[in-house]
This record gives sequence, structure tokens and C-alpha cells, in this order.
Amino acid sequence: MSDPFVVVGGDAAGLSGASKCARESDREVVVFERGRWVSYAHCGTPYYVKGEVESLLDLTSLSPAEIEGRGIDLRREHEVTGVDVDAGTVTVRSPDGTVEQPYGDLLIGTGARAVDPFGGADLDGAFTLHHLDSAAAMRAFLRDPGTVDPASVGDGFVDEALVGRYAERDPPERAVIVGGGYVGVELAEAFSAWDLDVHLFQRGDRLLHPFGEAVGEAVADELRKEGVTLHLDTPVAELRGDGDGRLEAVVCEGEERETELAVVGVGVEPNGELAAGAGVALGDSGAVAVDEYGETSVPNVYAAGDCAEDRHAVTDEPAWVPLGLTANRAGRAIGATVAGDPTPVGRIAGTAVVKAFDRECGRAGILDHGDAREAGFDPVSETITAGSRSGYYPGNAETTVTLCADRGSGRLLGGSVVGTDRAAVRIDTVATALEAGMTVGEVERLDLAYAPPFSPVWDPVLVAAKVLNGTLAEA
Amino acid sequence: MSDPFVVVGGDAAGLSGASKCARESDREVVVFERGRWVSYAHCGTPYYVKGEVESLLDLTSLSPAEIEGRGIDLRREHEVTGVDVDAGTVTVRSPDGTVEQPYGDLLIGTGARAVDPFGGADLDGAFTLHHLDSAAAMRAFLRDPGTVDPASVGDGFVDEALVGRYAERDPPERAVIVGGGYVGVELAEAFSAWDLDVHLFQRGDRLLHPFGEAVGEAVADELRKEGVTLHLDTPVAELRGDGDGRLEAVVCEGEERETELAVVGVGVEPNGELAAGAGVALGDSGAVAVDEYGETSVPNVYAAGDCAEDRHAVTDEPAWVPLGLTANRAGRAIGATVAGDPTPVGRIAGTAVVKAFDRECGRAGILDHGDAREAGFDPVSETITAGSRSGYYPGNAETTVTLCADRGSGRLLGGSVVGTDRAAVRIDTVATALEAGMTVGEVERLDLAYAPPFSPVWDPVLVAAKVLNGTLAEA
Repeated sequence: MSDPFVVVGGDAAGLSGASKCARESDREVVVFERGRWVSYAHCGTPYYVKGEVESLLDLTSLSPAEIEGRGIDLRREHEVTGVDVDAGTVTVRSPDGTVEQPYGDLLIGTGARAVDPFGGADLDGAFTLHHLDSAAAMRAFLRDPGTVDPASVGDGFVDEALVGRYAERDPPERAVIVGGGYVGVELAEAFSAWDLDVHLFQRGDRLLHPFGEAVGEAVADELRKEGVTLHLDTPVAELRGDGDGRLEAVVCEGEERETELAVVGVGVEPNGELAAGAGVALGDSGAVAVDEYGETSVPNVYAAGDCAEDRHAVTDEPAWVPLGLTANRAGRAIGATVAGDPTPVGRIAGTAVVKAFDRECGRAGILDHGDAREAGFDPVSETITAGSRSGYYPGNAETTVTLCADRGSGRLLGGSVVGTDRAAVRIDTVATALEAGMTVGEVERLDLAYAPPFSPVWDPVLVAAKVLNGTLAEA
Repeated sequence: MSDPFVVVGGDAAGLSGASKCARESDREVVVFERGRWVSYAHCGTPYYVKGEVESLLDLTSLSPAEIEGRGIDLRREHEVTGVDVDAGTVTVRSPDGTVEQPYGDLLIGTGARAVDPFGGADLDGAFTLHHLDSAAAMRAFLRDPGTVDPASVGDGFVDEALVGRYAERDPPERAVIVGGGYVGVELAEAFSAWDLDVHLFQRGDRLLHPFGEAVGEAVADELRKEGVTLHLDTPVAELRGDGDGRLEAVVCEGEERETELAVVGVGVEPNGELAAGAGVALGDSGAVAVDEYGETSVPNVYAAGDCAEDRHAVTDEPAWVPLGLTANRAGRAIGATVAGDPTPVGRIAGTAVVKAFDRECGRAGILDHGDAREAGFDPVSETITAGSRSGYYPGNAETTVTLCADRGSGRLLGGSVVGTDRAAVRIDTVATALEAGMTVGEVERLDLAYAPPFSPVWDPVLVAAKVLNGTLAEA
């Protein structure tokens, strides 16, 4: 274990692993990051675009100097282009040339990338939102020409040429969002705050598909109430440029909508190529397959974060749910393991929360009946609406909870929640119950908090469990 | 099972049981309530006193007519004075005389009463807060003379003579609260809203004792910040009257403080006398001992709510924690059982939440090391402070979490949380983990919700678990 711990990727998974290993051992720790940004909160970009977060640097949690202060050899603008698992080396290309770096243990934290199925996201005015540079460019575009100094935006990290180009343009009056997932819903809020005429196109009939029907409908209502025009069941065919590379319109079947700004937010895919090229096995999802310690099919090669699979708490099968906590947690566990303290990376419940204007949405586990049947369950769901506080207490607001369970065993499979008053964090109860493998009957008997300002006697999750348990008893 | 289901007590436990049985069976269901109020939310009274809840009737959830509409024979102002378990009858005293009522199953839901160790709570100006009548009187006292019409306060339920007496008095300028538990803390907020000079006396050195040291200190800071004068380590000896039965001062050792208004909130004790008189076994707590279906030592006699014990999720031993959800849940389960569907009443985690001005406080399980050792554990605790949201997101606020675990097994024993931003409901994660018997390592690996507006990447509960787990590993 005296050979270096080498990490590919300088964000959540990579730096969590590097930091933990550096703290817990005296191993040499080297992190290669192909870009300039490190340790940044991708999840915060919509709020920077909106203007609620003032500085782009607020979205970074550690500076390069702080990372180096942890005893980590951080090399930015160093791209790992290959892994030789027999020799135990990685090939690294940098502005200074290409070198071979030996490793004792290797952590692949290459992340994911935004999908651009229309090939138009490189048009001027079109974006994906999966990087701080595109967030910086978008916000520069939204502001009046000449009011943004590109050199002041990113402390030397940002792509100043890109930001500068948008800083000179007149702000858009219209925005098209392609895709009704997290990014689409969060940017609808952000663009509305800039008073744009916002149109959101969604291929299917529902927003936030993984959150289930009740949340999707509530969020659609909310977006419409806030003036966003929804185009559901409307697949986008292409983003059309004006011939000079500038976005002119979004084209759907039989319809096109002119716009100066478009964001393609139709999903992400794992950056699995480095691993695959090294002979590391990928899972069915296309992300890197790992065991309970995050180790891949190749000994001493680990993977974590958005490029890697995890194990699902409900099915105990591999699943790919690229989210921030998972990346941090798995990276940290691998850092502990390579420092000599074998630590499981933990399972995921697929817990996710998102804000849509005033609606707080949460989901965990398996909600979709097709997915549940595929996993061997016989799903039954109930949706209820209950108060967030005692009915007489000011601020009480409707909270809608869906719970899904297996008919035969009564086991809780998943849940969702949507509301305006402390709704999102209530999903943590569901996530914890899923990890514990509880039945709906056990959930119904949980001793959850009650006080008039915070919750009714029967918390909305308990109300849903009561109703679903009643349905299970009848079945 | 054709004999009637008879219920003693018309509040949470009793009416939950009666309603469930009436809905699920065709048994005759009779409820005896010795007072006039039924189905009321005692927990809401501080907010009525404060003025945030406008009408006293808002604190009732079902009217007598609605209860009768559920097929329940409700008899108010009927006091059950004895139970003959051999004959299967109860003796009932009412304005119309005394009768014997046969029962097939009996539910004792006689509740609890406020403790008045100084014997001064019957002075004019002194109160306990354990009934809607005292809340009505207190609020009438706080308002200007002549502005409250006693007949309009309680729709015929309220003690109009009592309310009328206070409605004529000049409002107090000073208030003394004896006891720093829920009632004391909530009333400190209520009286401050009326601009009284509020003094709170606490026998020990800490407020909200069952919530642990971190919460107690945060709440003391909050109360002081809001202008409440705290007298810690200051046992009250008596409430002194003026000789005509009117409160004049609160007397401590070597000190007395004049006041027009005093509330004694030093705790409650179970109304176990009816059960004990019938030969039903009480537990060590003085509350009625029950099995997992809420049945007492006497067959077909059940007890639930504030007069009964429950089983603790951590120790699996009997415990007496009189709170609203427990009463509703146990009552409902007993109603199902006597309707022919045997249903466990569930265990309690001792989960509680309380609002202290802007601080939200929660607790669950075992926090006190003495209690933990008594239950056979070797307790270790850690307290951390983390953000409630991503650090860059507006509204992020400090959230302090304490977790307590058993050193040998790593099992989670309890936790507390205090903060200003969605802090209270986070205790539900702890309560659920306690019910599942999780270790701190398992809690650390929970897949809890993360999105910048709602939670940091590592939820404060996860941060606490990480730190405590580190301490356990060192030990």
C-alpha cells in the first residue's frame, strides 16, 4: 500500500476519496482533473443562474490551495486518457506533455455528461447545464450588455472567452427548456425570475417523471401558475440555427418556436469510457459496476460518483442514480478503504428532492409500477393529501404523499411527497424506512414528531401509510 | 363480542378507539366524558393563549354531533366512578343520577393531570395549562376588561363563570412561569406576544430537560434574546395569595417576585385511580400497564393515551411518555382489536418536538447517559452544528444535532435537533432509525435528501452520525 492513491476527477467523489485517504494515512494522494474547476456544487448552478447565489465561486467548497493544504497533490488541466491495469499506471495528458503515473489504488470519478440528442447544444444561445462554465455564460447572457466583466466572474477558473461572448449580447426575451426533469424545472424558476417568456417542452405527459404522477401534476400546476408555458407530449426534433451558428428556433413535429435561449436538459449519461477502455466492467446502465466497497472488476481500481453504479436499498441490485450525496459518501468510503479501514459505500434509496417555485418535492425508492414488477414485486400505491401542521395553526398547507408497497409482503417500496411547507425533508422518513426494509404496517406505527407548528398529530407520511395499509388489508 | 364497547374519556385515545370500532364493526359503542369538552387538542392551547389561534373551538376536531354521527353514543358530563371487572360493568355518575353500564370491552382513556406541588394553582391569577377552560380564562385575563364575552368563547362548552371572572380584570403586566418544560417554553412565547414582563423559574439548570443539553442551551439563549428573564436552579417554594384568594407573588428561597399571573407547568401525572380501583395493575410509572395490544392485566380492559404506559422502541421496556400521537394511535389500534382485527398499539420512541420562539426543537429515544446506563447501555454522544441548506443558498441556518449511541454495539440510542430552518421534522429520521434498531454506521450511510434549498449534501443528522461513528471507532 505504499504506492500512490491516484484519483481521476476533482469533484465530489474524487475529492472526498482523496481527502479521506490523505487524512487517515500517509499515502501519497494524487488527483487529476481535466478541467480548471474543482470541488464545485453542480446542484447549485440553477440558483446562480437565477441570481439567488451571487458569485460563481460560492458554488465551490474547496479552493485548489485548500485541497493542497490537505496533503493532496492536485493537478488541474490534467486529463487521464488511459489506464494500464497490468502495469498499474495511468496515462496523463497535460499542457506540459504526456506522462505515465503509477498507482497502488485508483479511483475513477469521471462523472457524467449532459445528453444532447439533437446535436444543437453547441449553437450560440443553446446550452446544457452540467458545468459551471455554462452557468456563467447563461447568467452573462441574461444580464444587460456590458454589465459583466468576464475576468471577475470566476477567479481564473472560468472560460472567459465564452462568458465574454455572451456578456456582449442583448439579453434574451424568450427561453425554451427542453426536458422536464430537475434541470428543466429549476431553470424554469430561474428564467422566470428574469421575466423571460418561458416555454418548457417535455417528451412525455408528465414533469419530474421519477417523482410519480402526484408530484408531476402538482409541479405542472405550479409552473403554469407562475406563467411557464408547458408543452407536454411534445418531443423536440432539433434546435435550428440561423446558418451562422446562432440559435434561432426549437423545432417540434409540425411546430417551431423562435427563441434566443434554449437549454437541453434531457438527462445525463455516465462517463464510463476511461473505465471501459481499461477493461473494467460496466453495468447494464453503462456506468461502472462496483462491489459493496466501490471496487470494480479490476482489483485496486475503484469507481464512485456519477460514473458508477450503486446498490439499491429496495432491490439490492445495481442501480445508477447519479446524485451528490452518493458521490460524496462513496468517495469517502473508498478513501477510508484504501487508507486501510475497509468501509462499505452504502446503498442508495434513490432519494431526491427538488424545488419547483414554491413546491417542495421529494421521492425515494420505487414508485413506478412497471419498475416494481420488473423487480419482482406486486405494487400497490395510495396517494393522500394531509396538512403540514395542525389544521388550526397558521401556515398549515396541503401535503400530498404517495406510498407504494408490495401486496404480498406489505413491504414499503417507495414514496413521494409534494407541498409548500417543509414537505421535501419528510421524504427522509421514507428513505430511512426503505433502508430498514420496513413494511407499511411498521411505517404506520412509527413514532413521528407532532407539535401544532410542525406537523399534525398524524404526519402526512403516517396518513398515507394508514390508507395504504387499509388497501393492503382489503386485497 | 355483542356486549358494548365502553370508553372512558372523550379525547384522543378514547375517541380514536370509539371511532375505529364503530367504523369497523356493528358493536354498540358508548363514550363517557366527565367534562363538557370532547375531542380537543390540548397541544394547541399555548397558541390560543398567544392569539395565533383565533377561536377556542378551532382546537376541537370533532363536535358532539359529528361524534354521534359516527354511530357513537356520546355522554358528556358523565363520570365513570368505578369499574366492576367481575360483573363487567362501570358505575357512571351524571347530572341525571348514577347508573351501572355493562361492557364487553372497556377502554380506559382517563388522561393525565397537571401537577401542582405548591398547592397555589387555585389562587385567582394562577393556572395550570391542562384544559381548554384554563386556556380560555388565561386569554380573557390577557385582554382588556369588557372586551371578552364569555358566552361567545366556547359554544356552551366553556366554564363561563371562570372566563367571565377573568374577563373583568385588568390585564396583567407581569407573568411568572414555573417550570421550563413544553408548557413553560410555549407560554413564554405566548406571554411575550402580549408584551408582558415574563419570568421563568426552573428548578434545575436547564430548560426542556428531556431534549438534552444542546437544545436546552439553545432554547435558553433564544428566550433571553426575546426578553424572557430566566431563573435557573431556582426552585419555587410556593405561590402566595393576598388572603382573599388572589395571587400576589411567587416565593423562592430567599426571594419573592410579585406577579398578577402565574402558570405552574412542572409536569403531569397519569389519572390511574379508576384503573387501580378496579384492580388493574399499574406500572412503575404510575400509569396503567398494558401489553402490546393495549390490554391491561384484566382481560377485556384496555388502556390508552396519557393514563397508560407504552413500550419503548429502544429498551423494549414499558415507558410512560404522554403525547398526542401515541394516544391517537393506541386508541385506534384498540378500536380495531375490539372490532375483531387484533392490532398492536406500536412502540414509542419518545419523539417530541417543540417550538421556542424561532427555534425548532426535536428529540427522540434516550439522550440522558444516566437513563442509558440504567437500561444497560454504555452511552457515547456527540453534538455537531451543520447547515440546514447548502452554505451558498439563502436561508441556510445553523442546525445542531446530538446523537447518542451504545459504545459496544454501535446502536443508535437517541438524538436531538435544534435550529431555525426546518429543524424539528429532521428528528423523524432519528425516530425511524430508532424503531428500526439501526447502528450509527447504518445511519451514516442513509440516503437522505439533498438539494441546495432544503439540505446540504450531508444532512445534519448524517454529519452527526459521521462524527459519532468516528468517536466509536476510536473508543
